[in-house]
Formats: sequence, structure tokens, C-alpha cells
Amino acid sequence: MTMEKKRKVLETQLPSVVPSVKISRRRMLGGAAALGLVLVQDSFGKIIQEAQPLFDVPKDPTKRLGVPPGILGTRSPYEQPGKLPSLTSSRTPLQDLFGTITPADLHFERNHGGVPAIDPTNYELVIHGMVEKAMRFTLHDLKRFPSFTRTCFIECSGNFRSGNTNLSPQEICGLTSQSEWTGVMLSTLFREVGADSKATWFLAEGNDAAVMTRSIPMAKAYEDAMLVYAQNGEALRPEQGYPVRLLLPGWEGNTQVKWIRRIEIADQPFMTREETSKYTENIAGGKIRQFSFLMDARSIITFPSYPLQIEKGWVEIRGIAWTGRGKITQVEVSTDEGRNWKQAVLQEPVLSKAHTAFRLLWYWDGRQTIIKSRAIDETGYYQPSYQELVTARESKGGYHFNPITAWEVKKDGTIWLVNDR
Amino acid sequence: MTMEKKRKVLETQLPSVVPSVKISRRRMLGGAAALGLVLVQDSFGKIIQEAQPLFDVPKDPTKRLGVPPGILGTRSPYEQPGKLPSLTSSRTPLQDLFGTITPADLHFERNHGGVPAIDPTNYELVIHGMVEKAMRFTLHDLKRFPSFTRTCFIECSGNFRSGNTNLSPQEICGLTSQSEWTGVMLSTLFREVGADSKATWFLAEGNDAAVMTRSIPMAKAYEDAMLVYAQNGEALRPEQGYPVRLLLPGWEGNTQVKWIRRIEIADQPFMTREETSKYTENIAGGKIRQFSFLMDARSIITFPSYPLQIEKGWVEIRGIAWTGRGKITQVEVSTDEGRNWKQAVLQEPVLSKAHTAFRLLWYWDGRQTIIKSRAIDETGYYQPSYQELVTARESKGGYHFNPITAWEVKKDGTIWLVNDR
Repeated sequence: MTMEKKRKVLETQLPSVVPSVKISRRRMLGGAAALGLVLVQDSFGKIIQEAQPLFDVPKDPTKRLGVPPGILGTRSPYEQPGKLPSLTSSRTPLQDLFGTITPADLHFERNHGGVPAIDPTNYELVIHGMVEKAMRFTLHDLKRFPSFTRTCFIECSGNFRSGNTNLSPQEICGLTSQSEWTGVMLSTLFREVGADSKATWFLAEGNDAAVMTRSIPMAKAYEDAMLVYAQNGEALRPEQGYPVRLLLPGWEGNTQVKWIRRIEIADQPFMTREETSKYTENIAGGKIRQFSFLMDARSIITFPSYPLQIEKGWVEIRGIAWTGRGKITQVEVSTDEGRNWKQAVLQEPVLSKAHTAFRLLWYWDGRQTIIKSRAIDETGYYQPSYQELVTARESKGGYHFNPITAWEVKKDGTIWLVNDR
Repeated sequence: MTMEKKRKVLETQLPSVVPSVKISRRRMLGGAAALGLVLVQDSFGKIIQEAQPLFDVPKDPTKRLGVPPGILGTRSPYEQPGKLPSLTSSRTPLQDLFGTITPADLHFERNHGGVPAIDPTNYELVIHGMVEKAMRFTLHDLKRFPSFTRTCFIECSGNFRSGNTNLSPQEICGLTSQSEWTGVMLSTLFREVGADSKATWFLAEGNDAAVMTRSIPMAKAYEDAMLVYAQNGEALRPEQGYPVRLLLPGWEGNTQVKWIRRIEIADQPFMTREETSKYTENIAGGKIRQFSFLMDARSIITFPSYPLQIEKGWVEIRGIAWTGRGKITQVEVSTDEGRNWKQAVLQEPVLSKAHTAFRLLWYWDGRQTIIKSRAIDETGYYQPSYQELVTARESKGGYHFNPITAWEVKKDGTIWLVNDR
């Protein structure tokens, strides 16, 4: 069974499906074939939806005129990547992706009151508080200011799952995605309203049902904060904050308030719900850390990873690394359970606060082993091991939990998560 | 009427539409409202489909729970960009885009026999001819080779339209798009098959109904040619050659054979239909140029452009520039009919053979004028004027026609194409 056939498919819209391939490590549940899906179970009993599309493909495509050009392109019926949705989030299928851009419809979500329906012609952003002149901006106004484009990741600070060996990269840390963002620098607007030089914090407030609010230091506004209205070349998607969201490159996702409607400038933090009862985390000594904005360096091998199965011989180990502190400078990969580490190749251009693709060619001799990667950033920060984090936090999880991900490669070529190794 | 409301919408899937805004320069044709469209005519009689969505938007979105996370994200009903399709091509809506990435479903198409339906599990690429060992590669095989990711544009060599003042950037030169591509370097495969060092050309053959074929110099294979299977983070789209296409950064689109199934290595070009009767062009002296692979430097102001209308005051002129010769080094913009030229700001990072966003802040005093841009690349090449090209080619069009685009700004703020100025 090839890795293509093992690709997990979460949503399909296929004309017909015939379950024609062998399913290893899985048991067919059937019953959904009419929907274009074949339900299968892995050896843990976890239900996986898998599709084997067999639409009307000619034996020789050169003998039949193809589909004419259209208004919008579509995915191949054989390629149907999907996010893993829960009540409040959906996760990017990192193991199905290539390069560094996340397609906009596969960008992870973390909502606190769902995605609001907003008419852009009624959109307004108010900036007030410690300013010379409080002002309202329409979307049209914001687009008239000098624009700026940058590529960076957004990651949820709760981006960690563990507890089983049958977890994919999407399940472990699919709450990170990357886009090319376009908008206006927040500093431009702060000059427009005449922000007080004695101001130290501002409040960002969303127009969703949660009225999401966070306090942000003014220094970030003058460093690289943006109000963005475009993503990967087109208008921002509703799930990412349409029509306008705050972008704080390298900081935890929840601070980058979506559907932003109000900014209040002040000389102290606002102590909102999302920085007191939520988005704080345990550290050693029974203390709790507040305003932990920065996302630390992290990496994950996305190929090979669960639920794939590899063959003996040359394998290109591939993954992504990222850090909120600037640029990734090195990714080290071990293929012998952590005894030796080799430098992976980083894909150029390496951008600041951005997903960076890495790869290392490895000859797998068929013996059981553990492979893992660790990211190092321009500040010299080393991605910690799971045990180091457990010790430092006195906890096996929580926000800002960015351990090395270790994959066990069994003799049969199957791959399994082993956190604590 | 704001520019947002003037956005041309080509396909909408809206729950309901109420034609509620004034339409300037246009005449409503009606009749399509039930389909979610309002048909309007511009002053030339050209039919434009325009949508004014009014779906169920609450007055205060904070008072209603939003939409929960999903498997795939969607566009806002207010943002429905579309390509302009013809029988053999579809054009990217450059005036609706931001930054440098083209969303995959908005990438231009130019097909010769439509988009073939290909089952990736049956996919094979044959490399033969002047090689030590002819070989077949499945998609799985290609993905096992060392991978490489780069961002570059693809442009059709026939990317020019003219003749009227009511043409948008999409209509003038929408046959260029940009993606982040991932695949295997062609040189890697040529080493695998043992390509003969005396070989000088190779044939690339597509698996479409046209069996598209082009001869490519071997030097390009060793410079930067790739076989790509991924685009903007996900599998290549069918319209762009799924499962595998040839990528020749900076070269004319038709040579970058899609749905590639065969490569034959030889010591002379194959003189196919697409390099004799097609894809050759007139030059001065009644001669015809063959194998004109390289795309010369070009730029276009995408904002402001037809059919937008601007207001007096500060306007950020925005556009894209690109060249097949390497990096764009400068874009010069004139706002006074070509008497003076100013340096536009280039968006970093400037990549080789890539769309490069530029911008220049301009105060429009309300007087009629002409604005235009010209690209300069790292070889010192200057984008020519329309008249210079007409003289050099003894023709008002044809392949590789890359003139400066000039926009007339009328006193009422409307923008019109004026090629010959």
C-alpha cells in the first residue's frame, strides 16, 4: 500500500468510490461508500475516513478532450486535504502539505464564539483612548494607507496534543499555519490618531460573539504589528478575521484579534478574561506565567510520520521549523534515538518568524529506530525535549508546550509517536 | 460608489442579492438577480457581472453565535474573485489580488486540449533517448527523490490584449500567476538515467488530448528546471498539470509542459507544432524568431486601474513587476504622462524570476493625467514602450509583447487604458 493511498481524507465529493485497495493496520467499517467515503479503523480503533476515488478516468487521457478553462480551479478528486474540526478549532493537515504556504482554506482556526458574518461595507475600526484624536476607519480607509506585505506563521499557544502513539502531525500540532499577509502597519494608524508617547498598552477587541479582547504592549505596535485585510493574495478569509485582523508576527495566535473593531490605547494592561483565567500557564515552583506572548522555537518531522508506512532504502526526512524570535538558524535531526544529530538543509529563503522547511536524506536499513528533529533560532534557543518541558512546567501539557516530537519507526516501516523518548 | 462595490464578480453563490447601490458608467441589464447576479453594462456596452450580496448579516455580530470551525474554509460572500475564461484560457484577476501569491484556484490556465482526468496511481513518467538506462517513474518514485521548493511566476507568451480603453489588468495581462512550487530538480532525474553529456535538447510531452510537446535545451535542465507535484503548499491543481508538470522558471508558459508523461533526450530540437506554426514571433525585417523562451521584464499598475474610480488626495499606486532574467532591481513610476519617473518601493524579499510587488505614494490633485510603470531587471533590461515594441516587431501584438501599460486618470477619477501614450 503506497503512501498516496494511505493519505487520510476527511471530506470528499467524489462521483463514486470503489474500495479496491488493501487496508493494512485498519479495518473497513463500510456503510459510507455511497457517500464517497470508506470508513476505516486503525489498530487503536480510531475511525479514519479514507477515500479511494475511481471517477471516470480514461485509460488514455490523450484520446478524450479535457475540461475547458473555468472561473475557479478545483482540487483533483484524488487530493482532498481537510482540517480536523472540533467545537472551537480546526487543525491544518501538516503531513499533507509541501513547502511553506498554507492554502487559505486549510489555515487552522481557533474561535471563541464562531465565525461572525460581517458586511465589509458596514465595517468600522475605532481607535481611541490615550490619543490626540479618536478616529473611525472604514475598510476603504484602511486600504488607502500605505500597504505592506509579509509572510509569517500564526500558531495557537495551545498547540500540543499527546497521550497516544497514533497521532499525526495535524493532531499533535496542527494549530499552526502560514500565509502571505497584506495590510497596513499599526504604527501608521497610531501616528494618524496621535497615540500618546506615555501609553504602554493597547486593547484589541473583536467583533465576534465572544467579543475577544487582549492587552498588547505598545512596543509591539511599533515593532511589526499590522492590521491585515489580505491573505495569500486575496481578501482575508472569514475564519481568519474578515475583513480585518490584528497580526502580531511571532506571538501567540489568540492575541492577533480577528474581526477587530476597537483599539483602546492606555497606560496599563486591561486584565481581560483571556489573560487571566485563560492563556496563562504553570511554571516551576507553583507559579503561573502571564502575558507569555512569544512563541518559542519548534519543529516537527512531517514525513515520515503517523499514519504513513515507509520502505527500506533512501528516505528524505522532511518537516517544518519555526520561531517567534526571528529566524530559524539550524534544524538538527537524529535518526538513532538521539545519540547523533545531523544538520538538516533549510529551504531558502529563510524568513523571520516564518515556517521554514527542512530536509535530510536518510538511508533506512529496516531496523527499528527513533527519528526526531530540534529547532535552533537566531537567539540560540534550543527546542526542548518533552522531559525538559515537563520538569520546567511541572505539568505534562498546557500553553506554550513545544517539545521535540519523536517518531518510532517499526521494522514493518510503520511510524508511531513516542513523546517521552 | 466605493471601489469595493465596483469589484467585478464573475461567479457568485449567494443566498440572495438585492441590487441596492448606484451603478455609475454602467447600465443594469437585470434578469439575473435570482441567480445572485446583477448584470451591468459599462459605457462601451461590455457586459459585466456584478454582485451586491446582502446575506443574513446581523446588525451586531456580537449578539449571535458564529459559524463553528469546518473541514475547509470558504471565501466571504462579499469576496468572489474569478478568472476570465475563454475556450482555451482563463485569466488571473490581477486587480483583485494583493501581495505576490496567486491563490491556486485563481491561477491562469492556457490549455491546448482541456484539462485531462488523470488517476495519480496510474501516473508514469518515461525518460529515454540519449541515456544510459531508460526509466519509468511513478508519482511515488518522484516524491522519494530529494525535494526542492521555490516561488516563481509562470506567464503565457501570448499575454497581451489591447484595442480598447476599457480593459482591466486581468484582460490586458492576466495570463501570469505566481505560486510556491515543490518538486524534484530535473537534473537529479537526468543523473539517475545517466543523460548523455553530448545531448543538447530534450522533448517534454504532455498527457493531455493535445499531447503538448516542446523541445527544451539541456542547459535549462541543469540550470533550474524542476518537475513539480505541489503548488502553494498542496498537491498541484489539475489545471496546472496534476499530478506533475515541468517548471522552467522565467520561461514562457507553454514550454512548462503540464501532465508531463515523457521526456526524450536528444542532440537536436524536435521541431514540434508548438515551436514552428505556433509560439514563434515577428521581428523587424520580415524575420520570424523561434525558440524565444525567456520572458522579458514587465510591470503593470494594478491599482488604480480600469474599472476603478479614485478620489482626490493620497493614492498608493500599487502593482507587480517580473522578469524571466532574474531579479527585478527597479520599478519606475510616472504620474505626469512620462515626463518624470520616480523609484517605487519594492516589497522584500525580492525573489529571482518572481512577481515583485511595488508601490508609490502619490497625491492626486484632481487633474487629468497619465500614470505608468516600467520594470528594470538585474541585466539592465528596461521594459519598452508600446511604440518601441511596435517598431521593433513591425506588429501591434503577438507573442512576447510586454509594453508599458499607461492608465489615463480622468477628472472624475475614472481610469482608462491608453496603450499608445
